[in-house]
Amino acid sequence: MSSKIAVIGYGVVGSGTVELFEKNKAQIESNIGRQVDIKYILDLKDFPDSPYADRMIKDFNIILNDPEVEVVAEVVGGATFAYNYTKALLESGKSVVTSNKELVARKGAELLKIAKDNGCNYLFEASVGGGIPIIRPIYKCLAGNKIEEIAGILNGTTNFILTKMIREQMSFEDALRQAQENGYAEADPTADVEGIDACRKICILGSLAYGKQIDPDKIHCSGISKIAMEDVEYADVAGYVIKLVGVVKDTENGKISAMVSPRLVEKKHMFSHVDDVYNAICVKGNGVGDAVFYGRGAGKLPTASAVVGDIIDALKHKGTHIGVHWDECGDDFLLPRADEESSVYVRVKGENAESMKSAFSSMFGKLIFLERAGRPDTELAFITPKMKESEIDANLTILSHSVTVESKIRLL
Amino acid sequence: MSSKIAVIGYGVVGSGTVELFEKNKAQIESNIGRQVDIKYILDLKDFPDSPYADRMIKDFNIILNDPEVEVVAEVVGGATFAYNYTKALLESGKSVVTSNKELVARKGAELLKIAKDNGCNYLFEASVGGGIPIIRPIYKCLAGNKIEEIAGILNGTTNFILTKMIREQMSFEDALRQAQENGYAEADPTADVEGIDACRKICILGSLAYGKQIDPDKIHCSGISKIAMEDVEYADVAGYVIKLVGVVKDTENGKISAMVSPRLVEKKHMFSHVDDVYNAICVKGNGVGDAVFYGRGAGKLPTASAVVGDIIDALKHKGTHIGVHWDECGDDFLLPRADEESSVYVRVKGENAESMKSAFSSMFGKLIFLERAGRPDTELAFITPKMKESEIDANLTILSHSVTVESKIRLL
Repeated sequence: MSSKIAVIGYGVVGSGTVELFEKNKAQIESNIGRQVDIKYILDLKDFPDSPYADRMIKDFNIILNDPEVEVVAEVVGGATFAYNYTKALLESGKSVVTSNKELVARKGAELLKIAKDNGCNYLFEASVGGGIPIIRPIYKCLAGNKIEEIAGILNGTTNFILTKMIREQMSFEDALRQAQENGYAEADPTADVEGIDACRKICILGSLAYGKQIDPDKIHCSGISKIAMEDVEYADVAGYVIKLVGVVKDTENGKISAMVSPRLVEKKHMFSHVDDVYNAICVKGNGVGDAVFYGRGAGKLPTASAVVGDIIDALKHKGTHIGVHWDECGDDFLLPRADEESSVYVRVKGENAESMKSAFSSMFGKLIFLERAGRPDTELAFITPKMKESEIDANLTILSHSVTVESKIRLL
Repeated sequence: MSSKIAVIGYGVVGSGTVELFEKNKAQIESNIGRQVDIKYILDLKDFPDSPYADRMIKDFNIILNDPEVEVVAEVVGGATFAYNYTKALLESGKSVVTSNKELVARKGAELLKIAKDNGCNYLFEASVGGGIPIIRPIYKCLAGNKIEEIAGILNGTTNFILTKMIREQMSFEDALRQAQENGYAEADPTADVEGIDACRKICILGSLAYGKQIDPDKIHCSGISKIAMEDVEYADVAGYVIKLVGVVKDTENGKISAMVSPRLVEKKHMFSHVDDVYNAICVKGNGVGDAVFYGRGAGKLPTASAVVGDIIDALKHKGTHIGVHWDECGDDFLLPRADEESSVYVRVKGENAESMKSAFSSMFGKLIFLERAGRPDTELAFITPKMKESEIDANLTILSHSVTVESKIRLL
């Protein structure tokens, strides 16, 4: 007995998936207990020199209509073609595994329900953390816990840039250029540097942990393009590094708080040691305490590792739906940004530091003032007490005629 | 429809399992889709004041013969009663989940086969790393990889002791006493400090990764009771810390190398930041690269988290065997200790350092000599090149009439 699979998209992840699958084929077949072959690879481009040229196709319907194909890896990305393909495949009872975080973050609830209704599976271990096992650990291994919080360094590109800024005092622009030269950042780096990629990932983790779709468009997301060397220096002197962190957590009033933003991370915190393109995700449960998952969060073979792992699981569960699901998001599920409670680092420019110190102290109460070498007298940096973000914003607006807020970064 | 479960052993892990299960019962039942109750708790002791006194029993046969009981958590430990109980339960088609590393390390192959033959499951996520997800990530998420190596700080007690020795210059004896006062070490600390506990865990990980039972009695295991402050100091000056590390890996000639021993770990290595009772496990695969799992490796609720996660998985897979297994160990599977290739830190005592330096240099070739404040002239510490351990031992024996080997610690 032999099983057939198909791969949609022969880009970085797709070619890695084929490469890893073929490399470890004997072990994979021994694990599943039957022969498994990649029957089709769908891509609009031509690959005449590929060793898999004979399996390359351009017509999706060949895959959809071939009853031999049991599992399809959708690694084409985006939420248009991929959505239509995935929906059609699941409706026909074929399992789909994917690295497509955009699609899972936006349409996970719907697609998981279609999989359930059709007795097949929609698996997405590769959508968060590249090859780092995190999806299955949350819904399987930690299923006995109430998840209190998940926090993660979820984007390798921004972490590489921040590492260069922190360790080598490189400017954001120079660090971005180096990331692009190394192939860690795309020509248009917006999705990475503005936090959009990390936002999709924290939404997937939050949806999984709290059972309702968290739409990336509905949560606060800010990136790192505004981080200046001054911020890196103030943070350093005060014992912090700056990291882009996604956080999703259960709040006291039962609403879910979710956001992606740069954070001041204490140097003694494990996340401060997560450098370069590495990712780390900390899951806090009411049984396990903190469990941390660390590794390369992207890249050809690491991401392929997760895709192939899901292919194996889908093949082993042929005809059985693995009960992963979340519901569409209702009203009142997410905590509004204004109600978030945070302690925030603020850097301002104005007439002179002393007068700003006394003005802000009178509004905020106790502030921690920070220093850096060569601080001009027109600059002030401080950390606010933990308070509602709406109150922090209101306070910072009062002096807006004479003081400019240059930077605002939450503490982790 | 309602499912019944039983817990064997009401010690630390058993009471934690009951506590966590009852605390998160609503969520667990919603996940499984039916009511689940703990019907029996088996323990030889009496707990008249327990809120679960009405479910306490002393006769194992009540559980075995009750057709309502689907899943049993064996958290009593040891390899005698626990073995008999587990075998009988699996033969009767009931799934067993366990934190019992001794039993899994010794009898895993046999018990997993019985589970398979009887269409039930033997799950053991709690046997390694407490609540840290590691077993399922290896056999599920990383199933698309050839596992090249697994290395881990697997024992919280010894890591607590070493952390005290490194950070506070405390002697082994004082640090052990403090571990006992904090409840991290038992009155008889042998299984922890001599590496026996870590050895069982690396054997389980190796059996899982390489498909054959690795018997704890067949691999090299040394603990930390011989580590002296001098070693900690030499390591520190040279840029290392000392950690107890279990390593299992595939070697070039196809044999599996497995051992537990103290290791000099470079300060830039992630393991050097794993302190106190925390555990960390690094899995290296040919797709994923390095994936690291970190958290509290022991304790009541963290371990219970893994047990309850397995209970949920076993209940969801009622009537379906999850294909986890390994075979009995054949001959020629393990690499003999003498054939291991290592670079080793050595501390010796003799007439004077200079003559020892030249004598050892003539045997080993290039050595790295280490320093510490207040080194007496009768003491010498060095790091050997990477070579067969049998050759290192032979070299160290040559001068045994005039030089005493005080310490020998492998580099990671």
